[in-house]
Amino acid sequence: MARSGRRANQAITIQTVANHAGVSPMTVSNVLNNSSKVRQSKRDAVMAAVRELNYVPNMAARSLASASATRIGLLYRNIENAFLSSILVGALDATSRLGAQLLLRPLENGDPKEIAQQIQGLVENGANAILIVPPYCEIANRHGLTRDCPVPVVAMSPGDALSGDHCVRIDDYGAARDMTAYLIGLGHRNIGFIRGGAGHLIHRTRCEGYQAALRDAGLPVQPELIATGDMSFESGLVAGAALLDLTDRPTAIFASNDDMAAAVVSLAHRRGLDVPRDLSVVGFDDTPIAVKIWPSLTTVKHPGRQISSDAATLAVKLAKDVSVGQPSMLIYLEHKIVLRESAGQCLKLSS
Amino acid sequence: MARSGRRANQAITIQTVANHAGVSPMTVSNVLNNSSKVRQSKRDAVMAAVRELNYVPNMAARSLASASATRIGLLYRNIENAFLSSILVGALDATSRLGAQLLLRPLENGDPKEIAQQIQGLVENGANAILIVPPYCEIANRHGLTRDCPVPVVAMSPGDALSGDHCVRIDDYGAARDMTAYLIGLGHRNIGFIRGGAGHLIHRTRCEGYQAALRDAGLPVQPELIATGDMSFESGLVAGAALLDLTDRPTAIFASNDDMAAAVVSLAHRRGLDVPRDLSVVGFDDTPIAVKIWPSLTTVKHPGRQISSDAATLAVKLAKDVSVGQPSMLIYLEHKIVLRESAGQCLKLSS
Repeated sequence: MARSGRRANQAITIQTVANHAGVSPMTVSNVLNNSSKVRQSKRDAVMAAVRELNYVPNMAARSLASASATRIGLLYRNIENAFLSSILVGALDATSRLGAQLLLRPLENGDPKEIAQQIQGLVENGANAILIVPPYCEIANRHGLTRDCPVPVVAMSPGDALSGDHCVRIDDYGAARDMTAYLIGLGHRNIGFIRGGAGHLIHRTRCEGYQAALRDAGLPVQPELIATGDMSFESGLVAGAALLDLTDRPTAIFASNDDMAAAVVSLAHRRGLDVPRDLSVVGFDDTPIAVKIWPSLTTVKHPGRQISSDAATLAVKLAKDVSVGQPSMLIYLEHKIVLRESAGQCLKLSS
Repeated sequence: MARSGRRANQAITIQTVANHAGVSPMTVSNVLNNSSKVRQSKRDAVMAAVRELNYVPNMAARSLASASATRIGLLYRNIENAFLSSILVGALDATSRLGAQLLLRPLENGDPKEIAQQIQGLVENGANAILIVPPYCEIANRHGLTRDCPVPVVAMSPGDALSGDHCVRIDDYGAARDMTAYLIGLGHRNIGFIRGGAGHLIHRTRCEGYQAALRDAGLPVQPELIATGDMSFESGLVAGAALLDLTDRPTAIFASNDDMAAAVVSLAHRRGLDVPRDLSVVGFDDTPIAVKIWPSLTTVKHPGRQISSDAATLAVKLAKDVSVGQPSMLIYLEHKIVLRESAGQCLKLSS
């Protein structure tokens, strides 16, 4: 069996060989890789040490060593979006820290067939567990792709709990409700909301949280105060303009991510509206842009890096757990409202 | 030899088995992974196809298959910085597209010993070529770590050409010179500059480009007009304040990245200065924030994603090239000045 061979050789590392030969580990690597850069005397010393220690530095040993590592598949979206970046960085960081080998699969669109193919590809490449970013984790759940997957799947920050899947997330509904209640507490009655993109569960859950807070305060839900964007800055400009063009315009706008909120702040500047004196603007996620615009953005802290780090840690644990039929885990991280400069008391009584 | 065994089995994929058995590839995966979710009739069909096709779906075959792929090591910084994110995303994307296996190593600081250890670790894990982000690629070059490396190393966007290493970059010196010349063309004579962090080559090259443009125009280089930041937004606030506190304050400020430029714009708002009427502000990199602040930022387009994608493509090519002593490649991508709203004619004659 290869396994016992690997074990016998396990204690001998390049460092051991280097110490034995009295050279640097880099020199050992160079010799083993047949680099022409090493002097003959050093080369002889390394090869003598290799023979004496019975060190087997070949590719087969290497590939077996890597086959023994836990393999975590990561299905991600390769777009330059600050929240997704923080998710990606957290997963890369955690798997590296845990010594797991990461198998990466980027995917540009949410077609269920393509998601199924990528999941299958990861399984074929030996993934022992799979991490999936939103909205792909949501689409995979809806189409039964995770139920059919032979290895555990962990959804990173889905917009709602996904029945039957392991999830690490915040309570999007509760966070949107809290933020809306905060604006109501500042005296705002005419509060606009910019929904996230269709096809994401947050499209529903964050908007439901906004509506629940209005109802809690006995305020009407006015459909014309709900605009829809696709999470991009540009879509925030369009949705924000629609809200500010209303005859009875909102005194506060809650955008369901920071980029769309930043767009509303930018639009307010352009229209000569002072933020927050004339218009309060709040966002969601607390991505780096929140503190780089003026005035800085009051927003919901959505700990993406911590979520993906915890999800990766859970995936490694599940990958090593051979017991069958584990119940699905639903882990919540805390959200909080981060108070900055873009929201203030309502100074104007709306009609 | 395992190699010939692998070749004999190479044409039979899970898809072939699925077609033969008349089931989906996912079902084949499930059966091969002993999932209990598959009906007995489907299980029997799959196992019959496996026997008839002599398909060997075990882990050893898998690890050998993955050992045959080109392995690209990526030494990166795991920080949430927009330019580094674009570099990371470009490298992930390109290696995935090229079918190369990626070995990831995050590193939090630039200690040469740690960089050497990470490079060595990548080589030991079978990397056939290595990609390195700045400033680690610059530090590795300075300490001879890349010269001693037995596999090709490609530096992604170093701040200057690195003698003896493969580099993919823009001309940082030329770009800073062009941007400064643009500000001089707008009538500015008192132009402040915020340098990048110490320890990066751009600390020198971008600043030299700024100084060269002043000299080209017959203007003096005034040391008090050069402040230093560490590339963070916060450091831009401090450096910007130092420049704006000067008795004869600059009418334009050129920050050597967008985050520091955004900080100067934010600071100008706070001080009641209109950008660009009272103060022109320009950045470097053209990261997403450039269009999300108001007014939007005139900046240098630094194509990070394209640079890292080209660097990864070069790394895969070099990894497959068995000829020794390849001359180091120095590949330049085009920079350009992106005109937006934050810079305008100088309306005030400085003394």
